[in-house]
Amino acid sequence: MLCLKAETAGTWAGLAAQELDRVLIDHAHCEMKAASNALSLVARHPDEMDLVRALSELAAEELDHFRRVVTVLEARGLTLGTPPVDTYAALLRNAAASLPSRHRTRLVLVDRLLVGALIEARSCERFKLLLPELPKVAPELVPFYEELFACEAKHFRTYVDLAKLAAREDANLVDGRLDTLATLEAQIIRDRALPSPTVHG
Amino acid sequence: MLCLKAETAGTWAGLAAQELDRVLIDHAHCEMKAASNALSLVARHPDEMDLVRALSELAAEELDHFRRVVTVLEARGLTLGTPPVDTYAALLRNAAASLPSRHRTRLVLVDRLLVGALIEARSCERFKLLLPELPKVAPELVPFYEELFACEAKHFRTYVDLAKLAAREDANLVDGRLDTLATLEAQIIRDRALPSPTVHG
Repeated sequence: MLCLKAETAGTWAGLAAQELDRVLIDHAHCEMKAASNALSLVARHPDEMDLVRALSELAAEELDHFRRVVTVLEARGLTLGTPPVDTYAALLRNAAASLPSRHRTRLVLVDRLLVGALIEARSCERFKLLLPELPKVAPELVPFYEELFACEAKHFRTYVDLAKLAAREDANLVDGRLDTLATLEAQIIRDRALPSPTVHG
Repeated sequence: MLCLKAETAGTWAGLAAQELDRVLIDHAHCEMKAASNALSLVARHPDEMDLVRALSELAAEELDHFRRVVTVLEARGLTLGTPPVDTYAALLRNAAASLPSRHRTRLVLVDRLLVGALIEARSCERFKLLLPELPKVAPELVPFYEELFACEAKHFRTYVDLAKLAAREDANLVDGRLDTLATLEAQIIRDRALPSPTVHG
């Protein structure tokens, strides 16, 4: 799906539906981190106006999702609380950082954008898996997660398009780099002993 | 004005109007930093749902302002670019951090919220000073800065209200603490040799 090279374990969706509160709490944290991460990319690249414009729009959407998930949490009597341990994004960023050619500044930005793209792609896959389970446990959340599924796919494309812009004359490089990073991402997913009830767990 | 104890130098508004592009660029950065700062407070206090709700709404408004100032920059052929040097917020945070009683965790949060309140109050004062100058140099921006003036005043009150919530049984403490921090803020403003064309310069 999208550019992903490993499917989520078949047991994840059932577990996620069974422990939906934990997924929702983790999901809220994911949206907040996504908004913060997009803003930190804007702050690091203030001369790239296409990036500034696209990523501040994306951050606004992530923040809107965060606030809506917080509303869902409150309706269920939950607090946001401390984020569950989720090493996925950290492992992916570390794997990207250990690749050769990172001395090329522009490639660092390309990789950061493609890591963003992969995280969005994985969230998109997870929401697609969760959707058929939701009518049994929280039917009122189906329209919201349908919307989020489409939005994560759109954000995946935004990140890939920005990576192509960032690569400039070297736009073909992005396909190769996305392939390499998707292989690393797939390994992180396969290395999980058991799935956990988080968006990327 | 609001709780401020020092007026901005009379020469600031003319200088700001004369170098409006520099003010706009700095203003965009201020909005982005305000959004990021509010989100970082949310991330640090995920159990305080009143704070999570209020500050994520505030962050969304700051991000909306940021995107609108970026549109203004682009219409004027400017890029966001590297932020101008502006030590105001750093000096204010350092001054707050050097106060006694900081070993009390709750007081650290109260102070951080009140520092946020003071920054909003100062922005509000600056926009009020800028507004009479705008018709001469950029009349199309008057409605936007009128809206921002009102919004900064609202954000000042949001931060003070959250500080009172954070202080819990000790709500009276907030008035005293705001007085102390406002005195420090006034000193930072008075210590400026000359005003500079930035929101807090």
